Amino acid sequence: VNAVTNIPTADSLVSAGARRFATLPDPFPMYRGGELHAARIAYETWGMLNAARDNAILLFTGLSPSAHACSSAADPSDGWWERMVGPGLSIDTNRFFVMCVNSLGSCFGSTGPASINPASGAAYRLNFPDLSVEDIARAGYEALRSLGIEQANTVVGPSLGGMVVLAYAAQFPQAARRIISISGTAAASPFAIALRSIQREAILRDPDWHGGAYTDERPPATGMRIARKLGMMTYRSAHEWRVRFGRQPAAELTPDDGAFAPEFAIQSYLEAHARRFVRAFDPNCYLYISRAMDRFDLAAHGGSHNIALTRSRIEKALVIGVESDMLFAIDEQQRLAKSFEAAGVITSFAPLSCIEGHDSFLIDIESFGAKIGAFLNGD
Amino acid sequence: VNAVTNIPTADSLVSAGARRFATLPDPFPMYRGGELHAARIAYETWGMLNAARDNAILLFTGLSPSAHACSSAADPSDGWWERMVGPGLSIDTNRFFVMCVNSLGSCFGSTGPASINPASGAAYRLNFPDLSVEDIARAGYEALRSLGIEQANTVVGPSLGGMVVLAYAAQFPQAARRIISISGTAAASPFAIALRSIQREAILRDPDWHGGAYTDERPPATGMRIARKLGMMTYRSAHEWRVRFGRQPAAELTPDDGAFAPEFAIQSYLEAHARRFVRAFDPNCYLYISRAMDRFDLAAHGGSHNIALTRSRIEKALVIGVESDMLFAIDEQQRLAKSFEAAGVITSFAPLSCIEGHDSFLIDIESFGAKIGAFLNGD
Repeated sequence: VNAVTNIPTADSLVSAGARRFATLPDPFPMYRGGELHAARIAYETWGMLNAARDNAILLFTGLSPSAHACSSAADPSDGWWERMVGPGLSIDTNRFFVMCVNSLGSCFGSTGPASINPASGAAYRLNFPDLSVEDIARAGYEALRSLGIEQANTVVGPSLGGMVVLAYAAQFPQAARRIISISGTAAASPFAIALRSIQREAILRDPDWHGGAYTDERPPATGMRIARKLGMMTYRSAHEWRVRFGRQPAAELTPDDGAFAPEFAIQSYLEAHARRFVRAFDPNCYLYISRAMDRFDLAAHGGSHNIALTRSRIEKALVIGVESDMLFAIDEQQRLAKSFEAAGVITSFAPLSCIEGHDSFLIDIESFGAKIGAFLNGD
Repeated sequence: VNAVTNIPTADSLVSAGARRFATLPDPFPMYRGGELHAARIAYETWGMLNAARDNAILLFTGLSPSAHACSSAADPSDGWWERMVGPGLSIDTNRFFVMCVNSLGSCFGSTGPASINPASGAAYRLNFPDLSVEDIARAGYEALRSLGIEQANTVVGPSLGGMVVLAYAAQFPQAARRIISISGTAAASPFAIALRSIQREAILRDPDWHGGAYTDERPPATGMRIARKLGMMTYRSAHEWRVRFGRQPAAELTPDDGAFAPEFAIQSYLEAHARRFVRAFDPNCYLYISRAMDRFDLAAHGGSHNIALTRSRIEKALVIGVESDMLFAIDEQQRLAKSFEAAGVITSFAPLSCIEGHDSFLIDIESFGAKIGAFLNGD
């Protein structure tokens, strides 16, 4: 069973020496109403900002990672995109100043439902205002501005991040020169909404969720386990699993499951992922971000995807998708690339044939790195 | 929201006038050990057995249907394959004598975990012996023999039934002349095992499951709801849902879900299916049949799929699959067809391009009926 690579490990949470915080404007207005006070964004940076301040890459993450995209002297633990970001790598920190932000609404240092509400002194939980992909984009935009950077050279994001970069472009014209949207979408598909709504239901109906008022000692573990296993099922591909696991027996039976104990290696693999996730991610944060993904539709910004992207004033875009991705299907990236083109953006579309499904961007660094590196090394 | 078509309705359970019962040999030996006493199989028949007794079609079902494949004078309610089976239809009851069996281990009249154990006078629940696809095949074989039929003209089954027909052929040489395996597989894939194990986990971890000792008044409804929604997600296709639902809003909000209420039509659709399933299917029966599907591997019969199918003495086989099926992928049917060919069976392989995924056999009757009808009308 492979290590879980896309969620922070206990080690990375402890050695937070590389993590910094940006204070958001107070009040911070939320896209669907309400506002936050004294909110902040956790981030990490690599490389040096040049004198012209035109070499900044703003990196948004998928649903569950922290801002720790890669290691540094201050935090030598592996990051979630360790082989992609670094000196001489595809996102080259010798050339670019890279800032990765933990999403607003998440739980790795940025303000979210698990944070203390300054108005009450207790955790927000369900009192956190409605979260939108647009808010995650705005928080990243403000974090970048807090460093004195008005325009990103390139805004990059995979998965959820691939939606956030679009919300960023639509909301803040000229705040980015280039966009890389990886395995994202301009509007959540009904299949992805179905999957995420079932994941949320598993948490919401777990008696330990308690209307969002669960304790640290007793989180809605069953709901989180099921949500994570479903995630893994749709993040990979049936083909990869046939090659990798086939019908191999389980490495070890877990006797606590009694009469219907796992019998196959694929079940042990899911189990290992589920166990780590239960303690690593806050359930209310998960619910908020998950719903935000369902609701996102770029067309809300002006009436159509094309109008939204025309407004963005983006010069160049790279859209990457994977043919084996069942959650963010390749035709969604293809349509997005066409919308960029229709909006007058110089667009590259890179459909990849990796077999690892949606998560390929975490695994097939060679294929993704080649496309990302070539794009970044252009003008 | 369309009607649920592949589980029995309350009406069909009440008007059971067409249902008959076959008594199984006592003891009935189970494939993985143990035996049943006084076990029975519920079935329905259509058409007339000819004097040579060589026009019988034995029909196995998917996981959840009853033996009520189509209407008749004794039970005029629509069956689960209403437009496929009948006078002049693709499975032509003017020509064939069709027997559809409710699977052993199910809960629509056949003996299963919800049945009374004659040894104790109480329901078997988890005291039911391990169930295998091979047992479902044997029970159908014995049900057919109870009518004095030693050899089926054709044994037909979709989904789980597409696995059962293989177990039938492998175990009972010359008990069938022809086989039609529809959207089935010769061995469960790790993706399908992953999906089913998560469905089972949702039920097993529902506090109302109570180690299998739930009450009629309080079944593990949350687990069954999640299991059914996951089923629907993998029975259809992302493409179909994009065309059919897109991002349409929910028909009606269900206020009991509170803060995270359904917002999209796809969620209402899943909800309607889930609500009907909770009361329609017994949770322990579901767990037993689901695990049996994971465990099935035709290679257990002699060491390889080819050996198993050579032993079967089947003359002709039709293997049908659907390109958009994510649960029983098209390449599984393709490999099965090649195994039939390698075993010397005259084989037709029909890959269909329906967009409705695994459930296409219930929906695209025209495409499936053309292939099935042409095969049955051959020699």
